[in-house]
Amino acid sequence: MKMKTIVLNEERNVTLTAYLLEVGGEFTYITKRPAIMIIPGGGYEMCSDREADPVAMPYLKAGYQVFILRYSVKEHKTWPNPLNDYEEAMTLIRKNADEWHIYEDKIAVIGFSAGGHLAGAAATMSKNRPNAAILGYAVLSQDVKFCSITAPDVIPYVDKNTCPCFLFSSRSDNIVPVMNTVKMIEALTEAGISYESHIYAYGIHGFSTNDPSVQSRETVICERVKNWVDDSISWLKDIFGEFGVNGMTKPECEAHVNGDYGEYLSINCTINCLLDSPQAVAMLESTMPETIMNSFQSEDEQSSYYGMMTLVDILGFANTPRNVIDQYNAQLNKIPNKHYIDKKMK
Amino acid sequence: MKMKTIVLNEERNVTLTAYLLEVGGEFTYITKRPAIMIIPGGGYEMCSDREADPVAMPYLKAGYQVFILRYSVKEHKTWPNPLNDYEEAMTLIRKNADEWHIYEDKIAVIGFSAGGHLAGAAATMSKNRPNAAILGYAVLSQDVKFCSITAPDVIPYVDKNTCPCFLFSSRSDNIVPVMNTVKMIEALTEAGISYESHIYAYGIHGFSTNDPSVQSRETVICERVKNWVDDSISWLKDIFGEFGVNGMTKPECEAHVNGDYGEYLSINCTINCLLDSPQAVAMLESTMPETIMNSFQSEDEQSSYYGMMTLVDILGFANTPRNVIDQYNAQLNKIPNKHYIDKKMK
Amino acid sequence: MKMKTIVLNEERNVTLTAYLLEVGGEFTYITKRPAIMIIPGGGYEMCSDREADPVAMPYLKAGYQVFILRYSVKEHKTWPNPLNDYEEAMTLIRKNADEWHIYEDKIAVIGFSAGGHLAGAAATMSKNRPNAAILGYAVLSQDVKFCSITAPDVIPYVDKNTCPCFLFSSRSDNIVPVMNTVKMIEALTEAGISYESHIYAYGIHGFSTNDPSVQSRETVICERVKNWVDDSISWLKDIFGEFGVNGMTKPECEAHVNGDYGEYLSINCTINCLLDSPQAVAMLESTMPETIMNSFQSEDEQSSYYGMMTLVDILGFANTPRNVIDQYNAQLNKIPNKHYIDKKMK
Amino acid sequence: MKMKTIVLNEERNVTLTAYLLEVGGEFTYITKRPAIMIIPGGGYEMCSDREADPVAMPYLKAGYQVFILRYSVKEHKTWPNPLNDYEEAMTLIRKNADEWHIYEDKIAVIGFSAGGHLAGAAATMSKNRPNAAILGYAVLSQDVKFCSITAPDVIPYVDKNTCPCFLFSSRSDNIVPVMNTVKMIEALTEAGISYESHIYAYGIHGFSTNDPSVQSRETVICERVKNWVDDSISWLKDIFGEFGVNGMTKPECEAHVNGDYGEYLSINCTINCLLDSPQAVAMLESTMPETIMNSFQSEDEQSSYYGMMTLVDILGFANTPRNVIDQYNAQLNKIPNKHYIDKKMK
Repeated sequence: MKMKTIVLNEERNVTLTAYLLEVGGEFTYITKRPAIMIIPGGGYEMCSDREADPVAMPYLKAGYQVFILRYSVKEHKTWPNPLNDYEEAMTLIRKNADEWHIYEDKIAVIGFSAGGHLAGAAATMSKNRPNAAILGYAVLSQDVKFCSITAPDVIPYVDKNTCPCFLFSSRSDNIVPVMNTVKMIEALTEAGISYESHIYAYGIHGFSTNDPSVQSRETVICERVKNWVDDSISWLKDIFGEFGVNGMTKPECEAHVNGDYGEYLSINCTINCLLDSPQAVAMLESTMPETIMNSFQSEDEQSSYYGMMTLVDILGFANTPRNVIDQYNAQLNKIPNKHYIDKKMK
Repeated sequence: MKMKTIVLNEERNVTLTAYLLEVGGEFTYITKRPAIMIIPGGGYEMCSDREADPVAMPYLKAGYQVFILRYSVKEHKTWPNPLNDYEEAMTLIRKNADEWHIYEDKIAVIGFSAGGHLAGAAATMSKNRPNAAILGYAVLSQDVKFCSITAPDVIPYVDKNTCPCFLFSSRSDNIVPVMNTVKMIEALTEAGISYESHIYAYGIHGFSTNDPSVQSRETVICERVKNWVDDSISWLKDIFGEFGVNGMTKPECEAHVNGDYGEYLSINCTINCLLDSPQAVAMLESTMPETIMNSFQSEDEQSSYYGMMTLVDILGFANTPRNVIDQYNAQLNKIPNKHYIDKKMK
Repeated sequence: MKMKTIVLNEERNVTLTAYLLEVGGEFTYITKRPAIMIIPGGGYEMCSDREADPVAMPYLKAGYQVFILRYSVKEHKTWPNPLNDYEEAMTLIRKNADEWHIYEDKIAVIGFSAGGHLAGAAATMSKNRPNAAILGYAVLSQDVKFCSITAPDVIPYVDKNTCPCFLFSSRSDNIVPVMNTVKMIEALTEAGISYESHIYAYGIHGFSTNDPSVQSRETVICERVKNWVDDSISWLKDIFGEFGVNGMTKPECEAHVNGDYGEYLSINCTINCLLDSPQAVAMLESTMPETIMNSFQSEDEQSSYYGMMTLVDILGFANTPRNVIDQYNAQLNKIPNKHYIDKKMK
Repeated sequence: MKMKTIVLNEERNVTLTAYLLEVGGEFTYITKRPAIMIIPGGGYEMCSDREADPVAMPYLKAGYQVFILRYSVKEHKTWPNPLNDYEEAMTLIRKNADEWHIYEDKIAVIGFSAGGHLAGAAATMSKNRPNAAILGYAVLSQDVKFCSITAPDVIPYVDKNTCPCFLFSSRSDNIVPVMNTVKMIEALTEAGISYESHIYAYGIHGFSTNDPSVQSRETVICERVKNWVDDSISWLKDIFGEFGVNGMTKPECEAHVNGDYGEYLSINCTINCLLDSPQAVAMLESTMPETIMNSFQSEDEQSSYYGMMTLVDILGFANTPRNVIDQYNAQLNKIPNKHYIDKKMK
């Protein structure tokens, strides 16, 4: 492993510390690695060491290149300084992706508390977006004003361009109320973004990895809290794929929960999305029973429920044979999707 | 183990199957056991076997007495038939608590999908409340109308009398949208109720325990899904306590996240709760710095943030010595709490 | 689930309790299940309830049909009474395999302490062998004489017909010394039998599942002890295969660690085994470099090391191309193996 | 974290790489840390990168100072070069214990394959002993001759001064036969040393942490193999204690399984050990029933079984009241033990 610290902004004391693992050699089938940028918390008054190195280790064990961003705090915390620090760091990482043996489309951020605010801002409003975000007991609502009056709340910025998120927090957090997490997942749900969320029954704010070398054993904290570490690695595997002899495997989990933002339409699009395309409507009308099409297009409550379901779900309920489903898909795959989000452009 | 099936309502085909473990004998220190009532799903059209016996086993392993409720479905599903079935079952269990060696204040329900709706109704609107509820990919919103037009949505009934809840579901559930879980935890947060919540990244509706003998391995489903089983047992231990040589140990997690509903006031009450008691206000005014009391009582945003924090949190931020904190608590413990909820009455 | 208790021998108070899960119905792809027979411990003076029902539950959760054998103890313990009880029970289970929906070649035994002695006897000297054996802090050596003077020690009976074993015990066991487990795995190693073994650092004898409802939390016992339960289920999956939509999947782990007992020779046979077949020797001599063949057949220490290695290992060290390895295998597959063990005959 | 590489022997290319975590600061209650020295494998021909950095990470996460020893291989492998490298490294670490914030009596080694041979040699024959040893698919028998003809086999050196060991390997290892592990735990059992051992059912040699970034997912390897990592950390906690606000907690597991090597006699001594002290014999004779003393001192098989049991075990079987047991202990605690091993001297 190589370790280096890069000064991003001397005046504001902003640094990026890199832990870079080897590729090739005995790691025969590894030519590149995914990466993660750690953004420690500290109420925009400090960057906590408890949420820096101890967090780096499990991702290094999992084979990730790891970066720790120490961003603008205290007198330098005025927005958008911290977000600019993030942008600069992410731009640097992607620019050096080849040299540092990194997949530039498999870079996650993980932030805690106020650092979770910055990670959330990166996920929703940055120019140089991460590909996944892990938000630990993060400040995501107006509550951020209590530590930085100039910082914006993140939740209103959630939209279809937000990256997949993994959120964890404690129900009994007395510093950053759990409602920050709850409202964030509500926004992600509405925007159709993939996410995973774990809210543990009790435990104080700022538990980090909950290893006894980081969080005192004498603290009352629920024993499941520590599970977020391995669970987040397992989730990243679902989002980025896993190391395999022919490069990373295909991810199990898409960034969006349905096909509404793919390049072409598909059976994984919602009925609402399909109804928005005259070509798709024409195709469906020529093959679907008229009663079904009517119920899709009516304005009652049941049809609004259908609207959010995908075509493949509905075909499944109707026990449609696999080959017929495949025919639907083949036809839809010819129709360009006007809602397409090109992830590579981000 | 003894096994028996009791017919609760012959006409509506309602039964309660009991799996009763022994006490005493070689289980020297066990005189009673906590219990759990399983409420399988099935869209109020059936009671699924996949969410009955396979769910019973892990709780039996953990030492719980287990009951499976097969409630009114199909032509008998009209509300409140299913809720009445639950009431009858719970009344019967509590009535036989001594004979069946059950702690009558340590009885949980676990429900799945439509059964999760019934478990949620039990937790929020029944006369004979459970002491904890586990809600698996549960229908909790107006979405229930799609399987039973007469059934009420559960979420509006959440209040300070709701029992602690453990919720789990899949982000990509295409039958019962994850928003059911999200809105439920939002309501629980607002009501001050303890809960734990796990939303897994992807997986189809109705995965039950996700054992390969219940849910086909060929299904695409995220590997963390199965964790809810052990996590729910660990959570029940936090809520009910654990088997010990002198009976069940003291629970680690209270039913409410703060002391606002205790018999007497305490440092675990929120500022809002304390301000609601003239005696407490007088006590605080005689000991607290005036500026602090003013900030508690002003109407700006910051004070509303303080209002939801507990006194012990605020004293902690101010690095108040332990003995002073204890003095505050001793004084508050003499003041009866008008919001007191007597759990034994339920 | 159905539950029934069958009296095997009224005079000696021998019973077999069956917990039988359903097949078909909503368990659409399940037509049969593997099974496990639990043999509780108790020093041949009793059959402990602590090692009966609590052990049944995790295997039921995993989808197994479960039987509990209460065998001859106290005045009836004279050997071979207990072994005869086992034989009768296993014969009955295999006879009823169809009616009880059991794969007759996927039936395990699990025994604890003295019950582990009986399970070990079943695995090594019974007529109606189990297909796998789990031996928990089992008495396997001459130590058995201290609880039953007529019972034989198991270890000398280990041979190539012994079924695969999973063993666990505590290093600090003060009743059944850990050497029982150590000597057993030595014998299994020598006999070429597959096994898995977990010896935990400390913990008293007789911890069963180590659930707090079975083993008092107040006992000093290492926290890893409880892992044997899930690990044994994972191991059974490797030995028996897993539930799949087309029946049980192919096992990952063979009963023997090499191919020495297959119907035909293969590259998975040890050099010693191949050298024992004139046809194989002729084949090898015609293709292998002479120096290699000589080193196989010499009598020095290095060749004895080679003798225990398989041909595929040695070809692998020599970086033999895959297609050449496959040719070796194809040729060997034509030669009948005189050491063949027909598992179906057992 | 600081990282430095120290050249121990330039000619033989021996280095010690240190990963040193901070103490104090936000890690308020941490003034020192336990440490672990990693000894990679490679058949004494190389030091494998696959068993270096990837192994460091989990122990760093757990709060350990970590060192990687790259020792004499290839033309420099002649014994005792590698052992001398170890001695020099351990001496350096203990000498710098204060500066590097290390508990000098809480330093473990972990070695793999041939590195496991060196770790085993450190545990049994070095001058500057480790306090615990983790031996991964280690070469411990005469098999070592196949990679280094001058290297001694470790097993004959196991004695009462050997440190506690944690061993893991695969039953189907085709490079280092599992018998290496089996014979080692047999020797540890005979010597009364604490250990833990996990032999997994199948998997190739050299799996390291079995993370997919280290060991290809395409390899057939049993899924339990990866458990050794967390289990070894849990075991080290039992042997060294855990981080607590007042320093490391008291270990749960002693280095010896009984009290035979303590400074004074105790009820945890075996009967054999007590019978070896005339003072203890006199004490026992004055309080024990004569029949019991006789059975201890006779020469039949049963008494040899008693001889290996501890006094507290036997008093426990006889349901001796706690206060009487305490009296025995108090009396024995006054008698110096001639077999005493002063761990601090090592």
